[in-house]
Amino acid sequence: MRDIVIFSGSAHTEIAEEICADLGKPLSPTRVSRFANDCLEVQLQANCRERDVFIIQPLVPPVQENLVELLLMLDAARGASAARTTVVMPHFAYARSDKKDAPRISIGGRLVADLLATAGASRVLAMTLHSPQVHGFFSVPVDHLHALDELADHFRGGDLSNTVVVSPDFGNVKEASAFARRLGTLVASGAKQRFSDDRVSVTSVIGDVADRDIIILDDEIARGSTVVGLIERLREQKVRSIRVACTHGLFSDGALDRLTAMDDVAEIVCTNTVPLAPEQTSPKLRVLSIAPALAEAIRRIHDGESVSTLFDIH
Amino acid sequence: MRDIVIFSGSAHTEIAEEICADLGKPLSPTRVSRFANDCLEVQLQANCRERDVFIIQPLVPPVQENLVELLLMLDAARGASAARTTVVMPHFAYARSDKKDAPRISIGGRLVADLLATAGASRVLAMTLHSPQVHGFFSVPVDHLHALDELADHFRGGDLSNTVVVSPDFGNVKEASAFARRLGTLVASGAKQRFSDDRVSVTSVIGDVADRDIIILDDEIARGSTVVGLIERLREQKVRSIRVACTHGLFSDGALDRLTAMDDVAEIVCTNTVPLAPEQTSPKLRVLSIAPALAEAIRRIHDGESVSTLFDIH
Amino acid sequence: MRDIVIFSGSAHTEIAEEICADLGKPLSPTRVSRFANDCLEVQLQANCRERDVFIIQPLVPPVQENLVELLLMLDAARGASAARTTVVMPHFAYARSDKKDAPRISIGGRLVADLLATAGASRVLAMTLHSPQVHGFFSVPVDHLHALDELADHFRGGDLSNTVVVSPDFGNVKEASAFARRLGTLVASGAKQRFSDDRVSVTSVIGDVADRDIIILDDEIARGSTVVGLIERLREQKVRSIRVACTHGLFSDGALDRLTAMDDVAEIVCTNTVPLAPEQTSPKLRVLSIAPALAEAIRRIHDGESVSTLFDIH
Amino acid sequence: MRDIVIFSGSAHTEIAEEICADLGKPLSPTRVSRFANDCLEVQLQANCRERDVFIIQPLVPPVQENLVELLLMLDAARGASAARTTVVMPHFAYARSDKKDAPRISIGGRLVADLLATAGASRVLAMTLHSPQVHGFFSVPVDHLHALDELADHFRGGDLSNTVVVSPDFGNVKEASAFARRLGTLVASGAKQRFSDDRVSVTSVIGDVADRDIIILDDEIARGSTVVGLIERLREQKVRSIRVACTHGLFSDGALDRLTAMDDVAEIVCTNTVPLAPEQTSPKLRVLSIAPALAEAIRRIHDGESVSTLFDIH
Amino acid sequence: MRDIVIFSGSAHTEIAEEICADLGKPLSPTRVSRFANDCLEVQLQANCRERDVFIIQPLVPPVQENLVELLLMLDAARGASAARTTVVMPHFAYARSDKKDAPRISIGGRLVADLLATAGASRVLAMTLHSPQVHGFFSVPVDHLHALDELADHFRGGDLSNTVVVSPDFGNVKEASAFARRLGTLVASGAKQRFSDDRVSVTSVIGDVADRDIIILDDEIARGSTVVGLIERLREQKVRSIRVACTHGLFSDGALDRLTAMDDVAEIVCTNTVPLAPEQTSPKLRVLSIAPALAEAIRRIHDGESVSTLFDIH
Amino acid sequence: MRDIVIFSGSAHTEIAEEICADLGKPLSPTRVSRFANDCLEVQLQANCRERDVFIIQPLVPPVQENLVELLLMLDAARGASAARTTVVMPHFAYARSDKKDAPRISIGGRLVADLLATAGASRVLAMTLHSPQVHGFFSVPVDHLHALDELADHFRGGDLSNTVVVSPDFGNVKEASAFARRLGTLVASGAKQRFSDDRVSVTSVIGDVADRDIIILDDEIARGSTVVGLIERLREQKVRSIRVACTHGLFSDGALDRLTAMDDVAEIVCTNTVPLAPEQTSPKLRVLSIAPALAEAIRRIHDGESVSTLFDIH
Repeated sequence: MRDIVIFSGSAHTEIAEEICADLGKPLSPTRVSRFANDCLEVQLQANCRERDVFIIQPLVPPVQENLVELLLMLDAARGASAARTTVVMPHFAYARSDKKDAPRISIGGRLVADLLATAGASRVLAMTLHSPQVHGFFSVPVDHLHALDELADHFRGGDLSNTVVVSPDFGNVKEASAFARRLGTLVASGAKQRFSDDRVSVTSVIGDVADRDIIILDDEIARGSTVVGLIERLREQKVRSIRVACTHGLFSDGALDRLTAMDDVAEIVCTNTVPLAPEQTSPKLRVLSIAPALAEAIRRIHDGESVSTLFDIH
Repeated sequence: MRDIVIFSGSAHTEIAEEICADLGKPLSPTRVSRFANDCLEVQLQANCRERDVFIIQPLVPPVQENLVELLLMLDAARGASAARTTVVMPHFAYARSDKKDAPRISIGGRLVADLLATAGASRVLAMTLHSPQVHGFFSVPVDHLHALDELADHFRGGDLSNTVVVSPDFGNVKEASAFARRLGTLVASGAKQRFSDDRVSVTSVIGDVADRDIIILDDEIARGSTVVGLIERLREQKVRSIRVACTHGLFSDGALDRLTAMDDVAEIVCTNTVPLAPEQTSPKLRVLSIAPALAEAIRRIHDGESVSTLFDIH
Repeated sequence: MRDIVIFSGSAHTEIAEEICADLGKPLSPTRVSRFANDCLEVQLQANCRERDVFIIQPLVPPVQENLVELLLMLDAARGASAARTTVVMPHFAYARSDKKDAPRISIGGRLVADLLATAGASRVLAMTLHSPQVHGFFSVPVDHLHALDELADHFRGGDLSNTVVVSPDFGNVKEASAFARRLGTLVASGAKQRFSDDRVSVTSVIGDVADRDIIILDDEIARGSTVVGLIERLREQKVRSIRVACTHGLFSDGALDRLTAMDDVAEIVCTNTVPLAPEQTSPKLRVLSIAPALAEAIRRIHDGESVSTLFDIH
Repeated sequence: MRDIVIFSGSAHTEIAEEICADLGKPLSPTRVSRFANDCLEVQLQANCRERDVFIIQPLVPPVQENLVELLLMLDAARGASAARTTVVMPHFAYARSDKKDAPRISIGGRLVADLLATAGASRVLAMTLHSPQVHGFFSVPVDHLHALDELADHFRGGDLSNTVVVSPDFGNVKEASAFARRLGTLVASGAKQRFSDDRVSVTSVIGDVADRDIIILDDEIARGSTVVGLIERLREQKVRSIRVACTHGLFSDGALDRLTAMDDVAEIVCTNTVPLAPEQTSPKLRVLSIAPALAEAIRRIHDGESVSTLFDIH
Repeated sequence: MRDIVIFSGSAHTEIAEEICADLGKPLSPTRVSRFANDCLEVQLQANCRERDVFIIQPLVPPVQENLVELLLMLDAARGASAARTTVVMPHFAYARSDKKDAPRISIGGRLVADLLATAGASRVLAMTLHSPQVHGFFSVPVDHLHALDELADHFRGGDLSNTVVVSPDFGNVKEASAFARRLGTLVASGAKQRFSDDRVSVTSVIGDVADRDIIILDDEIARGSTVVGLIERLREQKVRSIRVACTHGLFSDGALDRLTAMDDVAEIVCTNTVPLAPEQTSPKLRVLSIAPALAEAIRRIHDGESVSTLFDIH
Repeated sequence: MRDIVIFSGSAHTEIAEEICADLGKPLSPTRVSRFANDCLEVQLQANCRERDVFIIQPLVPPVQENLVELLLMLDAARGASAARTTVVMPHFAYARSDKKDAPRISIGGRLVADLLATAGASRVLAMTLHSPQVHGFFSVPVDHLHALDELADHFRGGDLSNTVVVSPDFGNVKEASAFARRLGTLVASGAKQRFSDDRVSVTSVIGDVADRDIIILDDEIARGSTVVGLIERLREQKVRSIRVACTHGLFSDGALDRLTAMDDVAEIVCTNTVPLAPEQTSPKLRVLSIAPALAEAIRRIHDGESVSTLFDIH
């Protein structure tokens, strides 16, 4: 079969190196230049001709820079006669722009999906998209993985007999339930109320949480206001302990510091879909690697094996 | 400006006639033939050349027949040199097929959106799509209306001081809240639990409903099992009265009879997005017309006026 | 080379099983569900990734159901990363909708060809399309087979010294001539006259048929009125015996019973491109299998061998 | 409405001037240059911006030169911001390439239809396409006229009481019947037999022609061998007189001289869809103008009036 | 005709306001939000329905931010049913990425042209693209203006009898000649030599420049190294005075300060296609406005008048 | 891997045979027919199914005939299920039509690139395109070779110590410099001045050429007026000897005779990208073969090896 060639954009070279190590394949070099007029040029520095090319680039901040860089890489691979080009996108920020909830805005997730296809993406390997419908925004095949097994493995070591998994809101309940099934625990959910266009709060918790050990599970933590609101409600119900888990740890605007400063938050767990800045550190933070899962998916995509067991949430 | 010409497929001619009456425009005739080999042929029997053509066809049972008929009409309008062809689709059944929750299935909502564009749809006028993300499945502009104002008008006449609006599950809470705001009432929600791939039940109600007058609000009632499950939970909480409201009243498999037979269900309200079969009658059923809203949207689309006030849910 | 995987829609599973038996390959299972709102969901239940997928589905009644089911299967195969998806369409009903003979109708054959491409068909394997130009409606490669060899094999056993092949009208003369060449007989043709838009009759027979053994050859028999009209003309010319042969035996509206009831019709021969309903039986009917021809074509398509000898009509 | 602007390629400026005179519109100038390397450049020398542009260019010999010139004009009109560009193609030579009757050939009619769309054609106005299915090769709207009324007007003056319209083969019988209906005469048809891939002959005449005045009607006369073959058969049946009529008078390889030299051919009638070379003259030739019909169609297309009465063959 | 609506992205609101003032039209407001995950959302805050929308956004630093913002605005306008959307792009930075001069790079100019079309651009209004071939990268119509008249007007006031226009290299000679024709002066050119992939220098000046008043004309000044190199060569030839003129004044990496610091540079002239940062000031700098030219082009595009006189360079 | 199959159009069968000999592969036959109506039909006479098809056809005079023939061959290959179809285009005449330097003309190079893609080209192998930006006109991958090594090999034999390479104008200086580097000589350039739209002349020579042995290098010689103008200037500077070299030797309008007749022109060198007519002979002409370079590129494209070393100009 066609050889595999793997490149990484600038967004997250650490995970790319980890994936390649896992696959036992080299990470082929790229050269990114910025001209005086601020335009980017990316050179793929390995033969792509008739190869099975993978480009690893999460859409993480700086999102626009990383997106255009990715589009340039895709076009370069196509022009260099790649047989197939798969975008490996551990985090897809624009997936949150998935509906037209105000007049005359773009549904950014659909637009970016179309841009990737225009630039030459043959397929996409994604992880924990904000809503499952975003899958349908793509005209190219998507393999949509999740990190529930990695997160569950982390927690499975300890005593979970008194634990309840709590979803911050209803939108994430299905994932939280699947996570609870993995851990053999019950599940509960925060309920959000919208006070105005700008202010949404977690106003109650559905399910029995008093005196329990709590694992909050969300798909992503950005500013963290939802999780903070949920923690306030949980405190009112006198929970015994709180741990916070998510797939995508963006931790913007000091969210990590804010969570770390809370005494009743014992642990913060995320995966490495999003690279952490040097200052984003915390003694309570534990980052799990999803590189092995992505490597396994890449191997199966390349070998033509079924990937469905990797994305089955049940 | 270009003249408006309005056609209706076979799916729901009543609503088409009502819309046309409201617009003060004739419903132009179509001829639908079925050949010996079961193929359909649809002739649009009015000049389409350089006209602003609207084709009214909800995707309701028989869905496949109505879909193919619609595709043939769209292609006929394009071939007949229509300046623009808008699909008026009060109900879009395939919107429920909005995610890939099993391996190797189609995301039918996206596929149908692409088929409509291939057949020649310039734009779509839809109502209360199952999830807001479905909007992003379309490559052509979509005007996405809702029926909350029509439903609210119906209930506003009576005494609502003791009333609570209840969403059967979390997915519809945003709409239920907007509806409750219109009525000046509180909102509550059922919580669903999935026992297996096949069985999902409403297991609890979040919010204070005891001794209240309940209006259950859902986007669509098909077999009605979710609503029936919710009613069982509400009875346990000793609510005072129950009324059921939805936009899309499909009432399949005897759902209407089942709800009618419940003594504590005082009224069943839906709109006319879906045509009722002759046998789908009930003394408790009240069908509201959304034809005026669709007519107004068509008028604005044709005249180039803003439609956004019609689809703002807040 | 990539493995072959074969699925069948609901339209005609018997021929699919026969083809697979002939190829020595399993027929991979599909699950077709119909939701309460009448929408279909089709799951392909075998790994498609990088496979050479064939989907067997003639467009036969119920045509619209079978068409939409096919479109869903194509999209599912694409989403499941099939390397190539070939539609095996032994009968393509919409091929008869091949011209715009009235204003503001769709040329359905072209529309369906475009829909198949939109849904993900990489190529099509068809048999005896109503007119050869329909081949040009497809933007994807088409292999267009015919059943003349199978039909000729059937008749070759007996004494053909007094036989004449008769085409019901001029449109099928080329095929009838090729068939006659195979049998070493003469050829004649009925001539049709159009009395109004609705009534067309065979008014004469061109060629010497008196006292001859007749084999009527048509591409398809639906209501059978053309063949019945031809038989009336042949009787006037005092032919010795009549046998009727066609590729596509639709036999709608009791056509099979009507032909069977004619004493001078000795035999009715068709192939199995179209499934027969349980009630479509006749002691005079002989159904020939074109599964071996389709299996051979599939094998060659998969192996990259020339298919042209299979579709050469000469 | 947008202004109309009309250009002509090099293929047939006479008909373009006639159409413009009929419309009372100027024929806007074009400049065609040929570079030293044989490439063409066409400049449209009138403002196209937001205009309703018509480009008149039959695909007649030299076909390839005229085709590429047309494609360059279409692209120029698009780049010059035309609101809409209609190709007026009185003769479409590649319509004869409408099937794949040999392995590994292009269906040229479909290919050219796609090239026109790629180059920027918004729509096509065609006349008497070789087969009605060719209409379905186009992805853009086609208005498909015929010249039966112009031809009938020519013959209607004389005594037609003893006249029979004869189609050279079965493929043109429908048109010949419609023509006979216009004249109130009977219709007959030649029958062709194929002796080898290269040799096809008219071997008999179906219908009563003895001692009749014959009008042979074909869609097009190129080398004229079919018509010559038919005339030989007609002579055997001792017809009284012969006139020959067609829409597209290509008269290649001396066909016009050959027909003129036949004493029993009284008149040869064609329309001006194809320009005649200076040496293509005959005392027996009568060329009818279809410019008024094309002008009327252009006017209706521009004004958004129905064109269907112009292309109804009945 | 459809109304005109004008929006501006963040890149250069000053020129947008100037254009609108010139047109006597309001600049319709946009709301640009940046989410916690760094994704952008742009809301067009005026009705676009059936309007003739213009979006003003030069691709200037930060190029990637401005590009993605522009793509989101285009998609929003399409989704909001704009009749036509024109990108007004006074500077197109990626036009410099116009060839594949290294293996496995993207031709960025072509890619961005395709992205704009994917996002919904109907047409583009550009100014002084780096090479004229870049026009051919776009699949949508482009109106390509230049600023030679504005630049010439500036210099025409003074005494030009001793003046020579000098192009820094051969690539710009055609434009420099057209500029010299406007001023009635002679033209000369620097000649560049490439020493390695990284180092290119102006090594000589072709034409008579000694003791002359020099106007250097380039399309764009970014780092300014070419102009600085040319000035060194001019000094060697003892020119009398030097003025520098360009269309696009990017002045990156302190280029403006460097030129200002040269005693023999009397004046630096550019247009306002690129916004200047607050710190980009110089007593020698003169910025000419091309807003009137863009406004006039917009007016003509909207009114359907010819724009060609505006882009004729001769 | 898939087998290679090579076809040639009519444009230049000699180079096709040479390439095939070099590759050790047969040149598969094609049958080109011209119908009475001047339409072409091309049959590819070898199995293309799942093959790696190469079609060799330079766009040389008669350009329009050769272009349409090529488009028909591409479509035939696609319809015949080729796995991939590469156009091998040693000369692309329309590459000179690369900008819109007059209103309302097509950018022919971009149009033809789009037509090739529409007809089914998967990729293009080109040589010495008129400008490097033309590469960006193609939506399919292009491998862009040059002939500098072949040309340099020819001259390297002799004494080059007194030699200067001269480019006729600035546009070709980069290539001339790369050529001079290969020969270890200096480089100079003619400078062109435009007197009117129709008249452009070489008015001076930049660089030291007096008493030197000159090699004029251009990409293409058509009418040869630029080279003739340069020679006149070189004579004024009293050069010692003149040799003329180019990649594409079109030599139209007697250019070869004119150059041959000049006593001071010692040798004329071109490659065989363009076929010479029988009358295009000269005792001074030397034609170098680039068939080995094209064969090597085809081999690498087929085998998936890097081609970049073949197109690196440095």
